[in-house]
Amino acid sequence: MNEHLTLAAGAGGKAMAELLDQVIRPLLSNPLLNQGHDGAYLPGDLCMTTDAYVIRPLEFPGGDIGKLAVCGTLNDLAMCGAKPLYLSLNLILEEGLEIALLRRVLTSLAQEAALAGVQVVTGDTKVVERGKADGIFIVTTGLGQRIAPQPFSPQGLQPGDLVLINGPLAQHGMAILAAREQLPFETPLRSDCAALHDLVATMLEAAPEIRLLRDPTRGGVAATCNELATASQVGICLQENQLPLDPPTQAALAMMGLDALSVANEGKLLAFCPAAAAPRLLTAMQGHPLGRQSAVIGLVTASTPGQVWLQTKAGGTRLVDMPLGEQLPRIC
Amino acid sequence: MNEHLTLAAGAGGKAMAELLDQVIRPLLSNPLLNQGHDGAYLPGDLCMTTDAYVIRPLEFPGGDIGKLAVCGTLNDLAMCGAKPLYLSLNLILEEGLEIALLRRVLTSLAQEAALAGVQVVTGDTKVVERGKADGIFIVTTGLGQRIAPQPFSPQGLQPGDLVLINGPLAQHGMAILAAREQLPFETPLRSDCAALHDLVATMLEAAPEIRLLRDPTRGGVAATCNELATASQVGICLQENQLPLDPPTQAALAMMGLDALSVANEGKLLAFCPAAAAPRLLTAMQGHPLGRQSAVIGLVTASTPGQVWLQTKAGGTRLVDMPLGEQLPRIC
Repeated sequence: MNEHLTLAAGAGGKAMAELLDQVIRPLLSNPLLNQGHDGAYLPGDLCMTTDAYVIRPLEFPGGDIGKLAVCGTLNDLAMCGAKPLYLSLNLILEEGLEIALLRRVLTSLAQEAALAGVQVVTGDTKVVERGKADGIFIVTTGLGQRIAPQPFSPQGLQPGDLVLINGPLAQHGMAILAAREQLPFETPLRSDCAALHDLVATMLEAAPEIRLLRDPTRGGVAATCNELATASQVGICLQENQLPLDPPTQAALAMMGLDALSVANEGKLLAFCPAAAAPRLLTAMQGHPLGRQSAVIGLVTASTPGQVWLQTKAGGTRLVDMPLGEQLPRIC
Repeated sequence: MNEHLTLAAGAGGKAMAELLDQVIRPLLSNPLLNQGHDGAYLPGDLCMTTDAYVIRPLEFPGGDIGKLAVCGTLNDLAMCGAKPLYLSLNLILEEGLEIALLRRVLTSLAQEAALAGVQVVTGDTKVVERGKADGIFIVTTGLGQRIAPQPFSPQGLQPGDLVLINGPLAQHGMAILAAREQLPFETPLRSDCAALHDLVATMLEAAPEIRLLRDPTRGGVAATCNELATASQVGICLQENQLPLDPPTQAALAMMGLDALSVANEGKLLAFCPAAAAPRLLTAMQGHPLGRQSAVIGLVTASTPGQVWLQTKAGGTRLVDMPLGEQLPRIC
């Protein structure tokens, strides 16, 4: 561990895992925190989850920090198999911020919450001096009620489980990168930023056997699969020719030399379920507006525990490593 | 309202009320948020509250941002008459932060949570580029169970209620100011930073008739009393000669020309209760380690609704205005 914090430690990869495992978790360890999921399962079938949003730019094609701050936290609840109930909202604002921008962001936040039928029940606002924050940081904390029959556990994957995704990869990360660097792509790239709780309710109704849900945000599918392969001590084998990609994002990835598996998503989930339930689950997902392009993209294996592999289109296999993390800082 | 955000809008005074009332609340309005208390009362006797901590310096006599982030949020739950159960924790960290400082702050945070028997059940860590934050920002969200017989309401004050405080005013704000400006006071000033949930449990047992509790943080007793006088449409008359003050803080206030009523506290509460219950409540408070210097400091009146008055030692009265807010930014 370095003596000083690096930017990479915030990007969802190896450096972040080091910060969490060597500094933060040992000091706070308790059975509820140690569940290690996207949120905590509390007594009374409650779920609690929290996320800070430090994205730049604040507005981007497909969303803004306000929409993201609602979707991201609702998704963490959804990944616990929970119906979202309440949100709290913290605003950390920089002196000199344009009030009109704040209004736009809060309007978008309020719309997204209303759409989901969720209320912001409490909040707090702080203002710091110019140059001591970056426009707007938002923290939302969500409280939800578990509707999945059992709590999910990152240790719960079983060999033979199939891996499903609800649509094209890497749209959020590439849209942010394009907006930030003002890259001149012909077709504008749009973030997939969306709240997945309704899709998850549909999925749980069709396939209550779902083993585990995870949204591949920072570090993308590669980080999520590596984390789960380690936690469950299984291998995960992904099929390159099954990975959904939209053509503009694919072109942008190729131009930038980036790997779709390592780029952040904000409206995608990975579902792991027993093979017998997968066809039923896939049909249910494809019947939902946020799952039209769902696909089975991989298999959980007993071999190579802790490792993620990709069967390439060319017919080879390559190891999918945990991203180091510095690819795209402040992506969410 | 200005077109750009001012620093004063974060300091708990008039400018902040304007930001909240003109920009933020209208966009998020709902019955639970509109309760306007330190936290939200949810179905099932749950309470939820959240606070961001952007204090500078990060370490100060009597505490640090870690201790503060636990105490502040536990206190907001306590002010709802709730027993704290769970916390979530967000860290927004600046690139280059000294890891040893992070460890000290998290150790202090963990100790304070353990002392209160409260677990950090979920969290999130973000890192932003050098110069885009100020070392460490922390957000904690608390979930608690109401133990007060009824929810408190800022509209609930009644003429004839007495106002009690659990000890000396202005210690946190003056300690921060002294630490920040490296003021050469002979006796070091210590923040009163403390978690008040146990004191509150004692108080509610002795006097379940308590009308309302509030912790006078940003903007101090002046801001809290003004807010409540307006909400309840009553007057509040404070007695200068009853206000507890410790001599070093009093000397520092005099030297700096500051008003004890407008300076932040982090281990103090104001309790409003029917006069008949006040002696019983005062005795209970004085019997608790965090209430030894408790005092009755004022009276709720039917006259001058919306106004706060101070009966001075000299025998006059003066209006206690809502602080404008720019006195001490980033005090909590």
